[in-house]
Amino acid sequence: MVKCALCVHLIYSDIVQRSREELKAIRETNPGLKPTLAIIQVCLCIGLNVMQICLPRQCTEEEVSDAILRLNEDSRVYGIFLHLPQSFLSKSVRNAIKPQKDMFVAVVICQHVVRSSRRWIQEQQYQPWRLHPLKLQPLSPVPSDIEISRAQTPKPISQLAQEVGLLPEELEAYGNTKAKVHLSLLNRLQHQPNGKYVLVAGITPTPLGEGKSTVTIGLVQALSAHLKLNSFACLRQPSQGPTFGVKGGAAGGGYAQVIPMEEFNLHLTGDIHAITAANNLVAAAIDARILHEATQSDKALYSRLVPSVNGVRCFSPIQMARLQRLGINKSDPSDLTPEEVRAFVRLDLDPEKVTWQRVIDTNDRFLRKITVGQANTEKGNARQTQFDIAVASEIMAILALTDGLADMRARLGRMVVGSSRNGQPITADDLGVTGALAVLMKDAIKPTLMQTLEGTPVFVHAGPFANIAHGNSSVLADKLALKLVGEEGFVVTEAGFGADIGMEKFFNIKCRTSGLKPDVVVLVATVRALKMHGGGPNVTAGVPLPKEYISENLQLVADGCSNLKKQIQIAHLFGVPVVVALNAFKTDTQAEIDLVCRIAEASGASAAVQCHHWSRGGRGSVELAQAVKKVASQKNYFQFLYNLQDSVVEKIRTIAQKVYGADDIELSPEAQAKIDYYNQQGFGALPICMAKTHLSLSHMPEKKGVPTGFILPIRDIRASIGAGFIYPLVGTMSTMPGLPTRPCFYDIDLDPVTEEIKGLF
Amino acid sequence: MVKCALCVHLIYSDIVQRSREELKAIRETNPGLKPTLAIIQVCLCIGLNVMQICLPRQCTEEEVSDAILRLNEDSRVYGIFLHLPQSFLSKSVRNAIKPQKDMFVAVVICQHVVRSSRRWIQEQQYQPWRLHPLKLQPLSPVPSDIEISRAQTPKPISQLAQEVGLLPEELEAYGNTKAKVHLSLLNRLQHQPNGKYVLVAGITPTPLGEGKSTVTIGLVQALSAHLKLNSFACLRQPSQGPTFGVKGGAAGGGYAQVIPMEEFNLHLTGDIHAITAANNLVAAAIDARILHEATQSDKALYSRLVPSVNGVRCFSPIQMARLQRLGINKSDPSDLTPEEVRAFVRLDLDPEKVTWQRVIDTNDRFLRKITVGQANTEKGNARQTQFDIAVASEIMAILALTDGLADMRARLGRMVVGSSRNGQPITADDLGVTGALAVLMKDAIKPTLMQTLEGTPVFVHAGPFANIAHGNSSVLADKLALKLVGEEGFVVTEAGFGADIGMEKFFNIKCRTSGLKPDVVVLVATVRALKMHGGGPNVTAGVPLPKEYISENLQLVADGCSNLKKQIQIAHLFGVPVVVALNAFKTDTQAEIDLVCRIAEASGASAAVQCHHWSRGGRGSVELAQAVKKVASQKNYFQFLYNLQDSVVEKIRTIAQKVYGADDIELSPEAQAKIDYYNQQGFGALPICMAKTHLSLSHMPEKKGVPTGFILPIRDIRASIGAGFIYPLVGTMSTMPGLPTRPCFYDIDLDPVTEEIKGLF
Repeated sequence: MVKCALCVHLIYSDIVQRSREELKAIRETNPGLKPTLAIIQVCLCIGLNVMQICLPRQCTEEEVSDAILRLNEDSRVYGIFLHLPQSFLSKSVRNAIKPQKDMFVAVVICQHVVRSSRRWIQEQQYQPWRLHPLKLQPLSPVPSDIEISRAQTPKPISQLAQEVGLLPEELEAYGNTKAKVHLSLLNRLQHQPNGKYVLVAGITPTPLGEGKSTVTIGLVQALSAHLKLNSFACLRQPSQGPTFGVKGGAAGGGYAQVIPMEEFNLHLTGDIHAITAANNLVAAAIDARILHEATQSDKALYSRLVPSVNGVRCFSPIQMARLQRLGINKSDPSDLTPEEVRAFVRLDLDPEKVTWQRVIDTNDRFLRKITVGQANTEKGNARQTQFDIAVASEIMAILALTDGLADMRARLGRMVVGSSRNGQPITADDLGVTGALAVLMKDAIKPTLMQTLEGTPVFVHAGPFANIAHGNSSVLADKLALKLVGEEGFVVTEAGFGADIGMEKFFNIKCRTSGLKPDVVVLVATVRALKMHGGGPNVTAGVPLPKEYISENLQLVADGCSNLKKQIQIAHLFGVPVVVALNAFKTDTQAEIDLVCRIAEASGASAAVQCHHWSRGGRGSVELAQAVKKVASQKNYFQFLYNLQDSVVEKIRTIAQKVYGADDIELSPEAQAKIDYYNQQGFGALPICMAKTHLSLSHMPEKKGVPTGFILPIRDIRASIGAGFIYPLVGTMSTMPGLPTRPCFYDIDLDPVTEEIKGLF
Repeated sequence: MVKCALCVHLIYSDIVQRSREELKAIRETNPGLKPTLAIIQVCLCIGLNVMQICLPRQCTEEEVSDAILRLNEDSRVYGIFLHLPQSFLSKSVRNAIKPQKDMFVAVVICQHVVRSSRRWIQEQQYQPWRLHPLKLQPLSPVPSDIEISRAQTPKPISQLAQEVGLLPEELEAYGNTKAKVHLSLLNRLQHQPNGKYVLVAGITPTPLGEGKSTVTIGLVQALSAHLKLNSFACLRQPSQGPTFGVKGGAAGGGYAQVIPMEEFNLHLTGDIHAITAANNLVAAAIDARILHEATQSDKALYSRLVPSVNGVRCFSPIQMARLQRLGINKSDPSDLTPEEVRAFVRLDLDPEKVTWQRVIDTNDRFLRKITVGQANTEKGNARQTQFDIAVASEIMAILALTDGLADMRARLGRMVVGSSRNGQPITADDLGVTGALAVLMKDAIKPTLMQTLEGTPVFVHAGPFANIAHGNSSVLADKLALKLVGEEGFVVTEAGFGADIGMEKFFNIKCRTSGLKPDVVVLVATVRALKMHGGGPNVTAGVPLPKEYISENLQLVADGCSNLKKQIQIAHLFGVPVVVALNAFKTDTQAEIDLVCRIAEASGASAAVQCHHWSRGGRGSVELAQAVKKVASQKNYFQFLYNLQDSVVEKIRTIAQKVYGADDIELSPEAQAKIDYYNQQGFGALPICMAKTHLSLSHMPEKKGVPTGFILPIRDIRASIGAGFIYPLVGTMSTMPGLPTRPCFYDIDLDPVTEEIKGLF
């Protein structure tokens, strides 16, 4: 009997086939390499999970060989490292570790492991990518977006993935121009320091457009393809509704685009479709449950919910979870009292208080208010409800905020879909649907890799509605990108709407959830939008622009810069430096440009530069990229605007006063009642996600510039418990766009011979 | 000046990068090969489009060199073959064809082209695939479907594709286990003879299940992996609704499955999601149009539908098409008279006569009858309508029947969505939405390649609802598969419901559309299902099976074989031989099995064999495969049951009497009125797609066996003009399933660590 200190490292793999072959190949082609070192390095490189299991310090030889034999039989175990004194290698242990089932078993000396791991970590430090940018030869006048997109041949997505350091096992191609990236990457690069984190936000939007997406894409094109700095853009997936409605696509524009733009704007890799399916499964489960409870006795419900299968009745795991929430600690279905059965089988959802809506990724205005359940088979259980556009689903907000499968599953289960007749919140978990939702969303959780016109990498992932959610792309895409670019690299992401909404939510909600710290805000403005904030006339689609917008008018520009100044100040509230990006139009005069830059810098912006990516690609925004690089290297003092422990009212007031410039807030009785209810349910410590018009700093869309002297009315308050925020409603938010008389689709077509798409923009 | 006969072949490619490299590699590694031959063969092999352009027979040397130089500048031109007399190779022509921009230019002598093409075609003849089947080691007792699926590691889909003769350029991977296949394959293999075409159909379904899908998969596993014959299964994509409702998945079962079964049963490659998006865009366009017409003057509508863009007004191509249908031969918007404007801008859809429904891929019974448009913004235009399950969309029926992009686009445009107040049919083209639909469906038209448990190929494509459509997988998948297997190979496809419905529609609708000729029908039966047709008692889910089904009862079997006999006779009506596949259950006795086989053969079946793929994989169905192989080599005399030129009533009567065994049909006044209307609109020559219960040969679901002496009532008649059939309604067809009290989703879950899915079946 030998007493020994013993440590076993297990390697788990679900990509056994390939990895085994790679290991073999590497061992065979590197005869000089010690097998142990080769294996360790290779395993780490190919991203296998290495798990350490320590056996008791004092154990017998027999126990050790038994343990090894047991591990040999676990089909998921791919290799074993034993750390144990040389002296311990008795015959029975040696026998046990004889390779079986093609497994590699290695006995290594601890120092070797430490040394090789250290070397491996050093190799993980920042290295410039060997990126091969695509050449761009901009034409003048600038052709249509789809023409520019089509004229460029994208790199095979597998090539781009390799260039930015992804391993083949981490990629799931969807055709040749899109690929999903596995979250296991986060594990492989966990010791890699993050890159710089840049947020693109805007002044208060006007109908003239500011171009945040094009700035985001133009900036990474400049950083990657021209300054040769690793950089990633992280974008939202656009809803397909507006693509066929009014707005058109959202892949950027001109020579700053994601390509192929039709792939970006259409189904992409199916994430929004998955959200729609998951969201509507919850909705179908709610109404079916209301019907079944209304038409069955407790006993009938119980015998159907917990049926006898081959003579055996048992609760499923999700039913056990509900029993626990009800405080019933029983696991045998025959043990429940009639009262307990009743509590278990009846969610007793109040049809008037169902807050869950169905969704659809189409601009279908006729679904804004509907009555469902009017068929005879639904036995008089009709009720009024509505469809929202798919991106307004709470599941989209969850996708954007989650940090992994386990967290997503937990959030999906916590989603509150309504309340019972006695006022208790009813969740997706109570409906028994959590696991199915996670299964429907298992691929959607992986971000999609695409590329810009210049062949630089882009993640497209999540796109929550900015009206009632936080309007930012996903935490997971940002995290993956920050690891891939490495310490000296840049990740550029975009916030929806103006900085007062998108940026505020980015900081207070998204960064709070992710733990990531932003380094720079790029604030986008245009001369013509500033003129509108300065009091310029309204514009109408289809009518030529008023002369104020196409000839020099320094007074309007100067007045409109009030809005720019205010947005800069908002960023500074959070301690983050600002670079102003003035998106060039050919009607801008030099005097106007100089004026904006002067005011921006006087207002505290670290830099203000004009940029020309729309007409010239990344080369046109090199100056912006240099400014961002310089400012990102400065120390910053990021802080949240409020503490979660502040009262709900206090949190809302802080945002209203400090960000919007309101004198105070005014709560409706409904809003006050909701706050009391949420506090009572324990939801009071969630962050706040304001649902306010984006067209003004105030709640009045027509008030441009910097409105003052107003009281912000809080009409009602809702909560997305799964996503994890409370959203006060300031005015009425439409969650379903409509189609105009002549939707975009009139011009969209497909050439059946060349397969070329026309009319997308 | 040289006069000459001249012919130029252009090679277009959108995969320039890869093909160029391959060409170079092949030229470099085959120095003995004449470059011209190498290029031709390689171009054909890698599936480039070779386009022939003939210049005028008499042209000057200058014109020739100019033409060549122009072609050199077209970035899509990848190579040029000139066919011209040697004498014609003057210096200026030689100069013009100097390789530029990495292009290969070859001057070849015609005989070479002919000779090498002939050799290439010879090489395209049937060759057994170099398929590497996956080994199967069936366990007993048979584990759950998901456990069996998970225990097998699928081949990388790119490897399978290569094994069955697909080129890398023809594949679009969606992850590592699914890939879409390009339709260009049909062009590349156009001279390849088709393989044998096998249809799997069933006796009239019972709640006990017959297992058509498992037979389909077990049969190809036996043919490919055991008899070493090239063979493909072509399956329908299942709706996701039932996966989470009652039915569970549809990937086969036991050891005859498509893997990974969770990929098959969930989003797959997004085709159903694309159909949902396209279908609902039409619906949104309909209601929005009704609203806009109701609230605007002719002038306002016209100025919005044909707006002035930069001072220019013009009709879009789809608007020009509408003008032509209206008989207005004008192209300048300012030329229309007020009456013409009115005719153009007003579809004047009658809200009561909109036949287009919204769809959703969820079992949501509360959407069976709904009222939409109740929000104030819809200004009182509320109307009653419904959602169908997504696979019931006419667009799904079109996907299943189309033969390419151009045909699909045309069918989408022809879809009738309702009628105007004066009774004219209104189409998707009138709504201006055709091109957008084609764009949404551009990827869905490509079949998805997957594999069976034994690593043999499967196409999954389309799955139209068998109640109101034809319930068969796609024509395109069958066509691709028939080319890939080659002359001696087999394609096995499945028809929904019993042979009286699925098979009849397969022959009369699908084969008529595709022009393909079936070689064998495999008719699936089970002993227990036959017992039910023989008068066995009803069964109830969750209650043990009555003793009749688990112990020998020859009388019930003998009586039930009436249904089997009738279905064999139906196949013979079409001139196609039948092999009966008796799907084995462990309770079957040898006497029962012998009895069924005896009766089947006495009824005219060419063979009748028991099969065991469920418990033993392909090896368990080798006997069936051998029988199918033998019967397929016999000559057959396939014919349709009716001529399209027969009257609608005559066609319906033929099906009712010859297939169902009815004495006659009885038309309701509504049905008669519809027939008159369709005849007047010129739709009378379409085939008939009966919407009848699948649970009986008659219209009365409770009548098992072979009902006689009944009159088939035709309640109403509808038409899917885009898909191209008329569907008489026999009774009420539900087009939206519901969720039961305890849906499947209670047991479905995802392990967040291993990412393994549980509870799918």
